[in-house]
Amino acid sequence: MQAIDLLLSARWVIPVEPRETTLADHSVAVNAGRILEVLPTADAERRYDPAERVRLDSHVLIPGLVNLHTHAAMTLMRGLADDLPLMEWLKDHIWPAEAKHASPEFVHDGTLLACAEMLRAGVTCFNEMYFFPEAAGRAAIEAGMRAALGIIALEFPTPYAADAGDYIAKGLAARDALKEEALLSFCMAPHAPYTVSDRTFARVVTIAEELDLPIHVHLHETRHEIEESIAQFRARPIERLRALGAVGPRLIAVHAVHMDEQEIDLLARFGASVAHCPSSNLKLASGFAPVAAMLDRGINVGIGTDGAASNNRLDLFQEMRTAALLAKAVANDAEAMPAHQALAAATLAGARALGLDAAIGSIAPGKFADLCAIAIEPPELAPCYDPVSHLAYSAGRGQVSHVWVAGAIRVEQGKLVGFENRSLNNRTLLWQNKLATETKT
Amino acid sequence: MQAIDLLLSARWVIPVEPRETTLADHSVAVNAGRILEVLPTADAERRYDPAERVRLDSHVLIPGLVNLHTHAAMTLMRGLADDLPLMEWLKDHIWPAEAKHASPEFVHDGTLLACAEMLRAGVTCFNEMYFFPEAAGRAAIEAGMRAALGIIALEFPTPYAADAGDYIAKGLAARDALKEEALLSFCMAPHAPYTVSDRTFARVVTIAEELDLPIHVHLHETRHEIEESIAQFRARPIERLRALGAVGPRLIAVHAVHMDEQEIDLLARFGASVAHCPSSNLKLASGFAPVAAMLDRGINVGIGTDGAASNNRLDLFQEMRTAALLAKAVANDAEAMPAHQALAAATLAGARALGLDAAIGSIAPGKFADLCAIAIEPPELAPCYDPVSHLAYSAGRGQVSHVWVAGAIRVEQGKLVGFENRSLNNRTLLWQNKLATETKT
Repeated sequence: MQAIDLLLSARWVIPVEPRETTLADHSVAVNAGRILEVLPTADAERRYDPAERVRLDSHVLIPGLVNLHTHAAMTLMRGLADDLPLMEWLKDHIWPAEAKHASPEFVHDGTLLACAEMLRAGVTCFNEMYFFPEAAGRAAIEAGMRAALGIIALEFPTPYAADAGDYIAKGLAARDALKEEALLSFCMAPHAPYTVSDRTFARVVTIAEELDLPIHVHLHETRHEIEESIAQFRARPIERLRALGAVGPRLIAVHAVHMDEQEIDLLARFGASVAHCPSSNLKLASGFAPVAAMLDRGINVGIGTDGAASNNRLDLFQEMRTAALLAKAVANDAEAMPAHQALAAATLAGARALGLDAAIGSIAPGKFADLCAIAIEPPELAPCYDPVSHLAYSAGRGQVSHVWVAGAIRVEQGKLVGFENRSLNNRTLLWQNKLATETKT
Repeated sequence: MQAIDLLLSARWVIPVEPRETTLADHSVAVNAGRILEVLPTADAERRYDPAERVRLDSHVLIPGLVNLHTHAAMTLMRGLADDLPLMEWLKDHIWPAEAKHASPEFVHDGTLLACAEMLRAGVTCFNEMYFFPEAAGRAAIEAGMRAALGIIALEFPTPYAADAGDYIAKGLAARDALKEEALLSFCMAPHAPYTVSDRTFARVVTIAEELDLPIHVHLHETRHEIEESIAQFRARPIERLRALGAVGPRLIAVHAVHMDEQEIDLLARFGASVAHCPSSNLKLASGFAPVAAMLDRGINVGIGTDGAASNNRLDLFQEMRTAALLAKAVANDAEAMPAHQALAAATLAGARALGLDAAIGSIAPGKFADLCAIAIEPPELAPCYDPVSHLAYSAGRGQVSHVWVAGAIRVEQGKLVGFENRSLNNRTLLWQNKLATETKT
């Protein structure tokens, strides 16, 4: 008998690797924060002597979900301004609120709120793009959650930085301060083609190569963005980025809504990833991303929630479901993006886009024990013919019962573990009162 | 002080009538199952002496949701066959399973499971179309839930009936048996243009007029249905139904996905209602209903879940969110179907379509106390700038805390009241085992 830290025995384990596999009555052996073995529970009981044993008798155990695109602190603006056209929403509500309130405290508190929400929804890692990334990183550490922090770049001034050079310098300083943190990684995060100059994109590409980082950028979100780019640069944004050397395996193209066949082909040939954000694309009336076509071409498509100001939930179960349903109607094919593929997009594809697929994204020996258990219980999840169908189509974050990050418990019986709930709630309320009074003027 | 049965005091009340109204710190006075008054809590405390008082300090109280289209018993086939094209799904999976298993027991048990799921999601009334409606009605009564039972008609034989005449006779007999039940009402339910003859439609219209019943019918769900109708009848289905006298204020057109401008105009002029089923339309790749255009023309658009075999959840919060988001992208207008309109569609519009808007669908004096409370709590629903935004975009069935039907409590702190859970769960498991083994042959 081998002594280990933790043995999780579940009714079903869906490891995501190997693909389309559902293991009944299997256990996951965890030691020193990592997955040691996935094996039938009967064998596990003979082989391992765990310090802690968790029985998940009516549960399915999956890898922790990877939220491939968010602006976590924007939880503090959840529902502040809905049902508005994109530019009015940005110019009259979001940008003024950010200009007034964005600060390290705002980002810390908003990100902590986001972490609480995401953990309870089974998300164990998020790809973050916002101001004051060091504050976001500190909140993620406090929450015990994995984050890829964006070294954001844009040309215009905000309370965070003065110009592109300043943004990049501050982002790199945040990386220097936090790069030893086990839960954190980094991306270059040039905001979007319409807010970042050629010169800055070129610099971002150089730094990404030097530091071996992904490039996380909003791309082809709206028709307007494409028209503007043609007028200004005589090229569609993706072509402009290709010319600047930004299209390659490092690229995480966020949204990728308006993509013609050549562009899908380009992303496929260059090995780029897409962060599909279905709820946000619908809510802002951006359009319908051709996800089935991208998957057919072998593009690595992950899923993101976007920020809570345009979604309004950081709920990857919701996005997985919306992605799987929407892909079918958009492709006019009920077989498009089946349940297993949706789950892989919400886990392994996100990890791969972040360059973290050797560490997370599936339940495989050697990877970190970032795990999520979902209770398959009546009435909502009964009967159960196929647990992966329930994950994609019937379950929601309300059924997430347990979450672990690197083997440490973060959610137990649906409740956050080790969170200062009262303090977080008080600070959220303070921000709410501030934004509600000051933004309306 | 006036003695009453029940006083519900909520942080917010959204009555739906009057429109776009959010009342802070209001109470709903309930007596003998009906709403007596909606008034500020401070006034209510001076005016009423309630036998029971429920304080909903961080909650929003709304009318119970109305599920305008479902096949409740199909919960027993939830997730049995996903990710398949419509005809393969029907012919190879659903119809064979129904041919083998449909029976009064199947319908009773499946409907009871559906009621449990719907009540926990704040649904207090459902518009039902399936075989053995008497068994469905008995289950609804057992669950203490309101149902509009379809007197189903189609031409081909099933375990329930032999031909259209037999279906209608059996449906009318079910109505005779149950028509004194306070929670039940009835609709004529000719299945669809492609399964019902002209002669039967004409008969359905006559009976609907005689008995003053709505006509609940699948209509313009797929392109195929329209092509087939043109080939067979030289008319699109909606034109054929108009010629047969079925288009009018009684009509509940389910799906209404493929609608040209003249057809939208026709439904508007004739005062017909639409049951929009967004998840089902996406999952079966049926297409995108032009909901914003229908709302602009003043059509009464309610929302339905469809059956659990094509959704796979009977969750009107999910449908409300999907409807509101999808309407924006389809109309290319971020202002389409704002939150208040989505809530009205999921409540009052459904009641109106069923001819029940004098009795349910809003929180108004004289109506039945069919009510749903949602807990607005962190982290998922914090901050809160506008509770109706949270209802449409952030909340889910997981936040439903209390549900009343005609003043009787059905869900309390998220738990079903008066349900024989163990017996229901055992029967569900028996059906699961039956369907899983027998359907695969």
